[in-house]
Amino acid sequence: MKLVTFTHNGESRIAALENRKLIDLHAAFKAKLTSEGKLRAAQIAEAYIPKDMNGFLQGGTESMNLVKDAIAYALTNKSEAKLIFEEDEVKIEAPVPSPGKIICVGHNYREHILEMKRELPPYPVIFAKFANTVVGPQDNIPFYPISEQLDYEAEFAFVIGKRARNVSKADALEYVAGYTIANDVTYRDIQRRTIQWLQGKTVEGSAPMGPWLITSDELTDPSGLDIVLTVNGEKRQQSNTANLVFSVQYLVAFLSDLMTLEPGDVILTGTPGGVGVARNPQAFLKDGDIVRIEVDQVGVLENRVKQTSEVPAL
Amino acid sequence: MKLVTFTHNGESRIAALENRKLIDLHAAFKAKLTSEGKLRAAQIAEAYIPKDMNGFLQGGTESMNLVKDAIAYALTNKSEAKLIFEEDEVKIEAPVPSPGKIICVGHNYREHILEMKRELPPYPVIFAKFANTVVGPQDNIPFYPISEQLDYEAEFAFVIGKRARNVSKADALEYVAGYTIANDVTYRDIQRRTIQWLQGKTVEGSAPMGPWLITSDELTDPSGLDIVLTVNGEKRQQSNTANLVFSVQYLVAFLSDLMTLEPGDVILTGTPGGVGVARNPQAFLKDGDIVRIEVDQVGVLENRVKQTSEVPAL
Repeated sequence: MKLVTFTHNGESRIAALENRKLIDLHAAFKAKLTSEGKLRAAQIAEAYIPKDMNGFLQGGTESMNLVKDAIAYALTNKSEAKLIFEEDEVKIEAPVPSPGKIICVGHNYREHILEMKRELPPYPVIFAKFANTVVGPQDNIPFYPISEQLDYEAEFAFVIGKRARNVSKADALEYVAGYTIANDVTYRDIQRRTIQWLQGKTVEGSAPMGPWLITSDELTDPSGLDIVLTVNGEKRQQSNTANLVFSVQYLVAFLSDLMTLEPGDVILTGTPGGVGVARNPQAFLKDGDIVRIEVDQVGVLENRVKQTSEVPAL
Repeated sequence: MKLVTFTHNGESRIAALENRKLIDLHAAFKAKLTSEGKLRAAQIAEAYIPKDMNGFLQGGTESMNLVKDAIAYALTNKSEAKLIFEEDEVKIEAPVPSPGKIICVGHNYREHILEMKRELPPYPVIFAKFANTVVGPQDNIPFYPISEQLDYEAEFAFVIGKRARNVSKADALEYVAGYTIANDVTYRDIQRRTIQWLQGKTVEGSAPMGPWLITSDELTDPSGLDIVLTVNGEKRQQSNTANLVFSVQYLVAFLSDLMTLEPGDVILTGTPGGVGVARNPQAFLKDGDIVRIEVDQVGVLENRVKQTSEVPAL
C-alpha cells in the first residue's frame, strides 16, 4: 500500500494511492461506519484513522488493518462525502510531515565511506535533523543565502510504526511501518564549520521526503534496492541498499537500545558516494536544478532548487 | 512567574507556582469565564490556556496576559472546581515535557573550552537531543547498562515563546518565554565513539529539566547568573552565564537564521568546566548519586541517579 499525506482546500489528510487515485482514509472509514449505522462513526474514525499520519501510525496494525476495509468500501460504494480524489486535484505532502525524530545515519554506504577517505565504522554515525526541515515531493528545495555549498544526499528512509525499545534485529521489521525516499539536503560549509554537523543539516526545508510511504507488508525486504540520484538528468549517485554497512534491522536494534522510537519517527539510512562536495571538480546545487532520487520498489522523489531572498539576521 | 507542568490523578496540566501553591491555569481560566456567564467557557479556555505547555506557549503574549487574570481569580474566589493544589499533592514534571526541538550548545563557557583544550569558536557548536530524553525535577536519572561513563553537564536553558525566523539580537528576548535548568546528561564513551555526539546525548531520560519556567517578564536579563553543580554535595561545576561565549540573544539570532524556532523549543546554552570526564581522576556518576544544579534567580534542579536493569538488544 502507498500511503500519502495530501492537502485539499487547505486541509491536510492521509490517503492510500491506488491507480492514480487517492482514497481519503479518514473519510472512507467514517463513511463505512456510517453505512453500518454506527451513531459514533465520526468519533470512532477519529480514534482509529485520524487525518494525520502520526496519529494513524500510533494506531499500529489495528488501524492499518481497518484501512484495508475502508479502501474497499470507498472503491465499491457511493457516498455523499467525497472519498476519492484525483492526483491533480490535490497537493501531495511529505508522508510524515512532522516526525517526532528525524535520525540520520552517516557513512553507511561502503563506497561513500571510501570516497570520503574514512574507514568502515564499528558503530553507525548518527545525527539529527529537526521537523522544520521536512518538505514534500511537490515542494521546492529552498536555497537560503547563508552558504554557496548546497549539496544533495539521496537516502532510503524508513518510518517507525510501533513504539520500539530494546528491539532485537530479528524482530526489527515488525516495528517498521514502511519506507520512503529522502534527500538529506546539506549546507556543506555550514555542516563543516564546527565539529558537529547539525547546523548544516537542519536548515529550513532541507529534508524533502516522499512521495509516499510504501508499507512494510508490501515491501518486505529493504535490502537489495537500487538507489539513483540525478541532477538535471545527470547521474550523480548510484548504489544499492545491499551496500548498507548497517541494515534497517541493525539500525532499529541499535537505535532502540539508546532511545524509545515512536510511530512516525523517520530514519534516513545514509547516502551513497557521489555527493557534490566529493566530486572533482566540486558540483553544488544552484537555483533551478532538478534533483531526482529513484529507489527501486519505492518510487521517485523529484524537487527543484529555488533560491530565496530571505535576509539572515546576523 | 514560575510556570510548571504537574501531574495529578494521572493527568498532566500547567500551573503557576506561588507560595508553594499551584494554580491550575486551565481550570482557573475556565472558572473565571464561567463566573462571567460565558456559555463557551470550556472551549475558550481550551483555545487560550490549554492544559499543556506547548499549546499554552503557542498562545504567546495574549495567553500569557490572560494567565494573570486567571491566577488573580483563583486566589480570590471560591470555585466548585479544584483550582489550587499543594505542592505535596502533585508530581512536578519538566516544564516542557515534549519540546519540538532540544538544541544544545557545546563549548560555550570560556573555561570549559580551555579545559577541553579547545580554542574559542567562531561559531556556536550545536547538537541535538530528542524529546525522549526529557524527565522532570522529581524523576530519577536512569542509568542504562550500556556504558560506565555517565556524566553530568549543568546547563542554563531558555524556552522559545514565539515563532522565530531571522530574528535580530536586539529583538531576541521577545522570543523567549522564559528560563529553566537542564542537566545535559551524557554517556561520555558513547558520545565519543563516533564523530557525531548524538548517540551519547539522546539516550532515554538524559535531559532532566526544571523545576519550572521562570518567565522572561520576571527574569529580564539572562546574563550574570551564577550556575553551580554539585554531586552528593561536592561542588563540580561553577560559573556564571556572563561567561557564555554566545549569549541567549546571539543564539536566538544564530539559530533562527538556520531554522524556524517554535514555541516550546528548548535551547540548552552549554556547560561550564568541571565535567566528570575532564577531572583528574575522572569522576563519573554512579547509582544513588544526587546531582544538584542551582542557577541564580531560577532555582534548583536535583535528581538522583538510578541504575536500571534493562537489557539492550544488541
